[in-house]
Amino acid sequence: MKRKGILIVVSGFSGAGKGTLMKELLKTYDNYALSVSMTTRTPRTGEVDGREYFFSSRENFEKKIAEDGLIEYAEYCGNYYGTPRQYVEQQLAAGKDVILEIEIQGALKVKEKFPDTLLLFVTPPSAEELKRRLVGRGTETMEVIEKRMSRAIEESEGIESYDYLVINDDLQVCTQEIHHIVQSVKYEPSRNVEFINQVRTELKEMSKGEK
Amino acid sequence: MKRKGILIVVSGFSGAGKGTLMKELLKTYDNYALSVSMTTRTPRTGEVDGREYFFSSRENFEKKIAEDGLIEYAEYCGNYYGTPRQYVEQQLAAGKDVILEIEIQGALKVKEKFPDTLLLFVTPPSAEELKRRLVGRGTETMEVIEKRMSRAIEESEGIESYDYLVINDDLQVCTQEIHHIVQSVKYEPSRNVEFINQVRTELKEMSKGEK
Repeated sequence: MKRKGILIVVSGFSGAGKGTLMKELLKTYDNYALSVSMTTRTPRTGEVDGREYFFSSRENFEKKIAEDGLIEYAEYCGNYYGTPRQYVEQQLAAGKDVILEIEIQGALKVKEKFPDTLLLFVTPPSAEELKRRLVGRGTETMEVIEKRMSRAIEESEGIESYDYLVINDDLQVCTQEIHHIVQSVKYEPSRNVEFINQVRTELKEMSKGEK
Repeated sequence: MKRKGILIVVSGFSGAGKGTLMKELLKTYDNYALSVSMTTRTPRTGEVDGREYFFSSRENFEKKIAEDGLIEYAEYCGNYYGTPRQYVEQQLAAGKDVILEIEIQGALKVKEKFPDTLLLFVTPPSAEELKRRLVGRGTETMEVIEKRMSRAIEESEGIESYDYLVINDDLQVCTQEIHHIVQSVKYEPSRNVEFINQVRTELKEMSKGEK
């Protein structure tokens, strides 16, 4: 029996190193697949369609929404961003653990639709370090810093909605921790309904046989 | 800052190898402490006070109950069995992850008192294997088999109350899985309230500083 994969949402403070972590996870273990978001914004120099994003026209994106082809989507600064459903469902069915890297609003929408989604929040090792990363190297404008700050405050309010809070101090260690969390989650009873029912049925049959 | 340990209750089908698993866990990793139950039953040959059980008079046991010195207790076949509170609390405060090996009724009582208790249920790898272990080598009386069976059916009804269901196929693998689960649980937001509050406070202070 092929076991269904786990849907994993990764969010976290900017500067927490989510992108690097996900790359390391995919490189180190072979049970993961990374979902690529769809967006209507213009590609930046160096961005490749299907790697950073699937770039889409507004018309095509709205068609996707209409046919329920997106697990979640949001409009941000006049552009749509969303998670295509088909890739995620195919990979899950094939037993892959699928990672979505999205922010809290999207994360909560996904959890609502798929209650067994695993929500991970990544933070730098300390508030001190977070501050350093938010303020940057002193080359950022006040406006950028304030924007990052208010975003971080907003994000920090949502931490309790996540299942796990992982601290990215050492890349290798944190990658392994995330992998162990995903492996552990597979032992939750709600993910082993088939096995539990099988044991119960067998026990009842045995009990009948003995009497 | 010394982190408080995790209280872990291990239950499971008889024949699942809980005892061997716990021994292996204690041998392999140094963050665990095993709680020893107190009982009023007579020691069997080879049993050592403080190892298998703390053997106690009925009078002493009831004094313990009266002074709230037990985390949970039950009466079974005319004898008391219970978990002394002091050892557990001392070890948790010292940062040890403390294991109680008790059955479901006790497990649920502990979880009620300490909601952040981690409940693990251990099973053999398959219903087939469970059957083999329950029936034994054909040397058991019908009465013994039926008793084990009805107990297993009862236990199987409670699996969903547990946080994780671990399958003991290979001793080393299963020991490592349990260890990973315990490590993972440490990343739950509810176990990191101090860190989360610290980050929030720091962010708010920074925000004030910037404006």
